[in-house]
Amino acid sequence: MAWNADLKLDPASGTPVYRQIADAIVAACRDGRLSPGMRLPPTRDLARRLHVNRNTVVAAYEALAADGIVTSHTGRGTFVAEPVAAPAPARAETGDAWPSGFSRAVEGSALAGLLSAYRVATSSEGISFAGSYPAAELMPVERFRVALDAVLARSGAEVLSYGSTAGYAPLREWIAGAMRGRGSDVSADGILITNGSQQALELVFRTLLDRGDPVVVEEPTYTGALSVLGSLGARMVGVALDEEGMRPDLLAVALERHRPRAIYVQPTIHNPTTRVMSRRRRLDILALAERHGCAVVEDDWACDLRFEGEELPALHALDGGRRVIYLSTFSKKLLPGLRVGWAAAPRPVLERLVALKQVADHGSSPLLQAALQEFLRDGGLEEHLARVRPAYRERRDIMLAALGARFPGGVSWTRPQGGLFLWVTLPEGVDGNDLFVAARDRNVLFSRGGLFHSDGSGQGSLRLTYASVAPARIEAGVAVLGSLIRERLAGAAAGPGPRAADGLPIL
Amino acid sequence: MAWNADLKLDPASGTPVYRQIADAIVAACRDGRLSPGMRLPPTRDLARRLHVNRNTVVAAYEALAADGIVTSHTGRGTFVAEPVAAPAPARAETGDAWPSGFSRAVEGSALAGLLSAYRVATSSEGISFAGSYPAAELMPVERFRVALDAVLARSGAEVLSYGSTAGYAPLREWIAGAMRGRGSDVSADGILITNGSQQALELVFRTLLDRGDPVVVEEPTYTGALSVLGSLGARMVGVALDEEGMRPDLLAVALERHRPRAIYVQPTIHNPTTRVMSRRRRLDILALAERHGCAVVEDDWACDLRFEGEELPALHALDGGRRVIYLSTFSKKLLPGLRVGWAAAPRPVLERLVALKQVADHGSSPLLQAALQEFLRDGGLEEHLARVRPAYRERRDIMLAALGARFPGGVSWTRPQGGLFLWVTLPEGVDGNDLFVAARDRNVLFSRGGLFHSDGSGQGSLRLTYASVAPARIEAGVAVLGSLIRERLAGAAAGPGPRAADGLPIL
Repeated sequence: MAWNADLKLDPASGTPVYRQIADAIVAACRDGRLSPGMRLPPTRDLARRLHVNRNTVVAAYEALAADGIVTSHTGRGTFVAEPVAAPAPARAETGDAWPSGFSRAVEGSALAGLLSAYRVATSSEGISFAGSYPAAELMPVERFRVALDAVLARSGAEVLSYGSTAGYAPLREWIAGAMRGRGSDVSADGILITNGSQQALELVFRTLLDRGDPVVVEEPTYTGALSVLGSLGARMVGVALDEEGMRPDLLAVALERHRPRAIYVQPTIHNPTTRVMSRRRRLDILALAERHGCAVVEDDWACDLRFEGEELPALHALDGGRRVIYLSTFSKKLLPGLRVGWAAAPRPVLERLVALKQVADHGSSPLLQAALQEFLRDGGLEEHLARVRPAYRERRDIMLAALGARFPGGVSWTRPQGGLFLWVTLPEGVDGNDLFVAARDRNVLFSRGGLFHSDGSGQGSLRLTYASVAPARIEAGVAVLGSLIRERLAGAAAGPGPRAADGLPIL
Repeated sequence: MAWNADLKLDPASGTPVYRQIADAIVAACRDGRLSPGMRLPPTRDLARRLHVNRNTVVAAYEALAADGIVTSHTGRGTFVAEPVAAPAPARAETGDAWPSGFSRAVEGSALAGLLSAYRVATSSEGISFAGSYPAAELMPVERFRVALDAVLARSGAEVLSYGSTAGYAPLREWIAGAMRGRGSDVSADGILITNGSQQALELVFRTLLDRGDPVVVEEPTYTGALSVLGSLGARMVGVALDEEGMRPDLLAVALERHRPRAIYVQPTIHNPTTRVMSRRRRLDILALAERHGCAVVEDDWACDLRFEGEELPALHALDGGRRVIYLSTFSKKLLPGLRVGWAAAPRPVLERLVALKQVADHGSSPLLQAALQEFLRDGGLEEHLARVRPAYRERRDIMLAALGARFPGGVSWTRPQGGLFLWVTLPEGVDGNDLFVAARDRNVLFSRGGLFHSDGSGQGSLRLTYASVAPARIEAGVAVLGSLIRERLAGAAAGPGPRAADGLPIL
């Protein structure tokens, strides 16, 4: 029986009609008539069946989305969300559970899987294509040590004291200068230094969004952004990409329907799909944002890590920094352990970001910022990039060759123009989660596609990082994955049966 | 005319009665019949006058408190709150205001004054008794540089990569060991490393509280906690202190009336009043928290900075770490520029804190954590404390002597047993804000009492830091303040008149 077959609305009740519809859906989820992943009827259809205005059904779906009970995907419909798994309950070591409650920030969002994904990403066992990490063996450790020593000798007590909340002024100057060199209109006082771009994402979204507010994200998108938005209780509206980037036709519908405060995009080397948004598409997205009075959060994590293709202007440069908040980081192009990223934003936004940064942690370490600035001033970054970019291109090519040699037909992958990883699409019949478990047993790790989707889909894709893996290990790891995929394709063709053994070495 | 003289309630209206009462109060605030600082009638009186149940009035006041329109103070009543000053609007440099809105986190809280207070605190001009900073000239710069170099030589690439979200394992071990040495039952996996204890405060309160949730704070209390609670939209319930610490009679009433999820306390060298909670009072507070199923957030910022008096056990040690979340930091006792603090918490809390830390910034810099651990392992902290504790006691004594010599009768101050500052209470007729402005003109800075109050009161007090000020400057600065207070007392006695000139040097 359909979940809504016996749904009766009472317009005279004290409960608004949209809430009655929402409550009926909640009840159906609870008693199993609706289950995760099921698609709700289109608003138009349900409105007709219930003899109500379509906006009433839209309001019901939006209320459910705000509570995380359903997720909406422009162009695809509204789906019952995965139940949120809370972190494991306390082991009753003391025989005493936690006495008081928790906030929705930690109960109502998908924090549970986050840490296990991060543990996978930072694992140093076996061959790891997980995480998006720079090559550790290419890090300029000694040169950075010299910069640290110089700063400590020159102004040790100063950089070991509290610093400016917005960041170390000479570093802000350097960053603003580098951005101006790429066409952005920005000065040092428009820059906030953060603990990696992850903190920039968090502060920006906390500044813009209240619980339940809609925000447009690319589908798929960066896991770290999804986790921030989840913890804030934002309503994520996913918009699919095509070869040129976020689809403007779907974005227009999403803006019209959801009226979000912000659009989150990674125009250059999109994580995870590695796509580069075309120049025309960049202008389209900005025009749509302008028409709808919407902010754009541009995450340019891969800046400086392009090794091929034409350099395209950032949205921030194209827009004159009016509605675009720009984020980037030194973690990927230099040293993750510094935890230095930044946000560039128009003044009203930046003032609020700085205030929230003060509330969050009183500012980042002046010592690391000053040492980084010393390193940058001496040309350390150019020298480092001149070393890593060719190395990353070489590793990409080694991975592409290995994929061509080892992966069966039906698997496809991207050829990134820069960055640290590529994106693989599996054929029908091969499930990425199952592949992950099997590969992990063989000591090969990767990032599952589901990590990058706001709705838990993405089982048909995976992300493979090449930048931090030595060439011989790239080949060995891809060989393992290739054989596991072949096994699964054979199994799918033959129907369920015993798993084939194979002769590849355990790594 | 009283604001509620013509208030008419309509029980048949679609608007609940409590909301009608709340709306009438909002209207009265808007048209000026109620203004900031005015006390609302006791709930019992208003209920009688309006012929409604007292709980209806309580609900109205609570709704207003959740929106930040009124503040409640146990034992004193409910008051109209100060209007929240939003950050200054954008200068119309581009002729274009920010296109979309902002979250309540940055609009609805007292962020505006925060940065200016922090700028005062970090100012290096003149003589500053503001901020609570350790002495820069006593910092172990060279020894820390040696630790940094050793770590970089031994494991440079590792500590410049991403690290564990919860923190560098050997540092967590060291901290857990130090806490066990003081009687706490804790292991390394019960510790989260944060960017100073400010981030610990933020993550803890985000884990425990939703917007509008009540939390008990000491009145006055630490500015940084007030700013976190303000940005989260928590409802702060202030409980006054007596000589032994937070008053248990008032706390019992607050717990009964507001049912808060947490109590925030600084039992040892309370900031700003420097009080030390007695052992008996510690047990009283824990018993009350236990009775009401309430968490306790213990901020032990001054641990290791006691130079007099009996060492008392932390609440965390007394409670066995069951309902107490413990925070501390290396900023005050060692080096603020490391930005290293921590939280110790029961497992269900810690798991959520680690997840939120991952969302917030992917973990603190492994380099700084590893260097700190190297420094600690080599006994650097003991050596440093052996140097700074006597220096801080000497500076306290110099300040106490200067206050005795320069401040007029009627001013009183505390004699702290440790920490970095003392607390001054001004006599009637001297306003702390006015004194602040006059002192700033004379290049002497201090922290105004109002910074430490959730309701904007505190004009009769100020906090003076001695630890980071050289002895000669302590005397000169106190002399300026003393003369300014004398002027004001003379002016108050004589009535309004021209300001007296004085012969003290401009500093």
